[in-house]
Amino acid sequence: MPHRFDIPAATISGLYRVIDRIGNLGPGAGFLRAPWSDEESLAMQHIESAALAAGLTSRRDPVGNLIIETPGMFAEWVETGSHMDTVPGGGNFDGTAGVVAGLAAITAIFQRPLPLQRGLRLRIWRGEESSTFGTVSAGSRAALGLLDPAVLTRTYQNRTLAEAITSQGGNPGAIRAGLPLISLNELDGIVAHIELHIEQGSILEQGNFDLGIVTGIRGSSRRWVHLEGAFDHSGATPMGTTWRRDANLAMAYMQVRLDQLLSEAITAGADLVQTVGVVNASRDLNDSIAKIYNNAVSKVSGYAYFSHEVRGCNSLEVHNFSQDACDVIRQTAAEFGITVEIDEFSVVEGIPALDHGLQQLLNDCCHAHDASTTSLASGAWHDVAALHRFQRNNGSSIAVGMLFVPCRSGISHSPDEYTSPEQLALGASVLASALASLACHLADSSLHHTVHTL
Amino acid sequence: MPHRFDIPAATISGLYRVIDRIGNLGPGAGFLRAPWSDEESLAMQHIESAALAAGLTSRRDPVGNLIIETPGMFAEWVETGSHMDTVPGGGNFDGTAGVVAGLAAITAIFQRPLPLQRGLRLRIWRGEESSTFGTVSAGSRAALGLLDPAVLTRTYQNRTLAEAITSQGGNPGAIRAGLPLISLNELDGIVAHIELHIEQGSILEQGNFDLGIVTGIRGSSRRWVHLEGAFDHSGATPMGTTWRRDANLAMAYMQVRLDQLLSEAITAGADLVQTVGVVNASRDLNDSIAKIYNNAVSKVSGYAYFSHEVRGCNSLEVHNFSQDACDVIRQTAAEFGITVEIDEFSVVEGIPALDHGLQQLLNDCCHAHDASTTSLASGAWHDVAALHRFQRNNGSSIAVGMLFVPCRSGISHSPDEYTSPEQLALGASVLASALASLACHLADSSLHHTVHTL
Repeated sequence: MPHRFDIPAATISGLYRVIDRIGNLGPGAGFLRAPWSDEESLAMQHIESAALAAGLTSRRDPVGNLIIETPGMFAEWVETGSHMDTVPGGGNFDGTAGVVAGLAAITAIFQRPLPLQRGLRLRIWRGEESSTFGTVSAGSRAALGLLDPAVLTRTYQNRTLAEAITSQGGNPGAIRAGLPLISLNELDGIVAHIELHIEQGSILEQGNFDLGIVTGIRGSSRRWVHLEGAFDHSGATPMGTTWRRDANLAMAYMQVRLDQLLSEAITAGADLVQTVGVVNASRDLNDSIAKIYNNAVSKVSGYAYFSHEVRGCNSLEVHNFSQDACDVIRQTAAEFGITVEIDEFSVVEGIPALDHGLQQLLNDCCHAHDASTTSLASGAWHDVAALHRFQRNNGSSIAVGMLFVPCRSGISHSPDEYTSPEQLALGASVLASALASLACHLADSSLHHTVHTL
Repeated sequence: MPHRFDIPAATISGLYRVIDRIGNLGPGAGFLRAPWSDEESLAMQHIESAALAAGLTSRRDPVGNLIIETPGMFAEWVETGSHMDTVPGGGNFDGTAGVVAGLAAITAIFQRPLPLQRGLRLRIWRGEESSTFGTVSAGSRAALGLLDPAVLTRTYQNRTLAEAITSQGGNPGAIRAGLPLISLNELDGIVAHIELHIEQGSILEQGNFDLGIVTGIRGSSRRWVHLEGAFDHSGATPMGTTWRRDANLAMAYMQVRLDQLLSEAITAGADLVQTVGVVNASRDLNDSIAKIYNNAVSKVSGYAYFSHEVRGCNSLEVHNFSQDACDVIRQTAAEFGITVEIDEFSVVEGIPALDHGLQQLLNDCCHAHDASTTSLASGAWHDVAALHRFQRNNGSSIAVGMLFVPCRSGISHSPDEYTSPEQLALGASVLASALASLACHLADSSLHHTVHTL
């Protein structure tokens, strides 16, 4: 039976009191703590101070990721972690919730007289969000030697990523070398890494679940579809494809057929989501493709474009469905006399399954806390995906797990992002329970299972 | 049997030689002769000079519409007419073709020793195009007392319509009075008015027809449809309307269902066309509705809008179908959890049938010239529609007819707009034949029929 923790909501509120003011853009405007900004550093320093005050130790890697640990020497370590940067105008929970809960959890374990056989570690990654420098998980991927050095020249607010790293005391040269910033010994010693994160969806809230056990992380395949038809007089051109090469209409048929294609795939067992998020309304594309504004109320549409995204944990399933979707797009274009150009601009492979032992352990810990729970895939990318992708010298991956806490209405990347201190405290308690079970090498069956799968 | 005319292509080319240089924006850039601009006035003066040189007379009404007539006193008059203004970047045939052909036709008749019992008149209207001051047929409607004086304050290039009229020697006060600028006597004396115009569609070209007899003029019913859904994370939000309120997807289903609704209506005999010309890409609307740019590749779409236009000659049919279309839009919105707002911003009633006698006469004249022909509705609005709408003191309408000449690929309002001198010359010859038949009171059956219906 896992340990039970009862981290008070006040502990969470207390840690948030200062962070709530760092990078706050004002009432209703949300937060901006850009990757490697003064604001991100300040928020991390606040966590560091609280950790030191609780008797924990701290250090930084060459690019400025912060590492909090229980004191003492251990061969093996149990980790949690997340990030504190935000998207512009984002909320204070995406990432930060996992850091706050992680510190609360490790502190709670450390304050108990438990026979720790493994050390506890909290990693506060830099720059997880991609919306500023256009690269996701820059901090964790840099730490693992997985970050393409080319991104160092990308700019945000007239500063390259390299300059931003330097401005916060980091060394971008460490990224150029393309090697892990964590020693091989330390990497081999990581027994498990569990990240707590807000769901960024509303499955938990709508199902009235206290917490969610993440099964896998969805990857994505994204493309722009450009359609060229013919601008004709809307009154003088008869209906039908003999007369009209209507880009807007072809696009609508494509969307509906893609929707039906996915419904069939889901009925046949596929675990995918599909989104046409942008239809003729990307500000950047509209600035560069002037002919989009040649469309008019009284013209048959001669030009249209849309984004098409497929997400799923199983990258082969994503790939195959995307191919089928492109076939439907091309067939529909031909039917409507439309010239089509499909430009795939991003493929990120998903993680079909997080560690099964950790999923079982988190489930047991939820039960021990009378927390209702469900299993669900993560729709968004997280730092644990980078950790999972890293291959150790013996060919093994780091065992990773994720615990989701609900967020109000599923909203994130928005000033309206919110999770209550009570919800976070329950999540932190369950996280503490799981970390403690791993650190104390408890001989219960689920843990044994975990250890075997590591 | 109608008179046969053989106006040479060189006559057309000759009249075009100067007009081709007035308001020409340069190679490939098309023309700009805005309503009541120096360019429009210059083009009209060129026609006036050619008319005077041919022995015809000229005068202007208070707002500057130009009137060319055969000399002499007549109780009754047979008219043709069109306009010389263009949309910005438009072609040199929409309107101007009818003016050039009209002058060629009247000159050809005038040069023959025919026993004219009615006078011949060419009306060159000002400002038919709506793309600058936002009002259609400003010149002809002003002449008939049908122009809303409120449009005088509309601006184009920092000049109100009133200022533009004044700048070309016209008097906007005549429009404020709301009375016809043509005397009642003159109005009563108009026996028929036939406008030659380019088709602005490709039915003639694709069917290999030399000319087209216009049956009616399509009116239109136009609305903006605004859809408000919810911006959700594209990866974390499951598929289906339980989870997603996807504005882009609802819009696609609406477009496809509207397309199917129209197919059914056409199968059941309706004579309508329907166009969704703008989907999320009106420059003006995008500037004012910033949330359209909150759509993103990785978000379920929370906002979308589109234009919906229905056109038909029968205004009741247009109205009823538009109502059914709005029902489909509302039902689909409800199904997708979308808030919908439908904003009808324009209704222009069509003309179900142009004068049947004139249609028959034009048909006979085509046969007399071995010109292949078909009957078709006009998809675009023309000045004859304003003439038809005017009610004389005895309650009758002016009998109007239209003759279409083909235009290359159906393109208009574009630098690519083109009709050959040969095509226009054949149209001018048939127009001359019809005008001459009416002016000479020929006692053939079709003309009798025409006169009875006047």
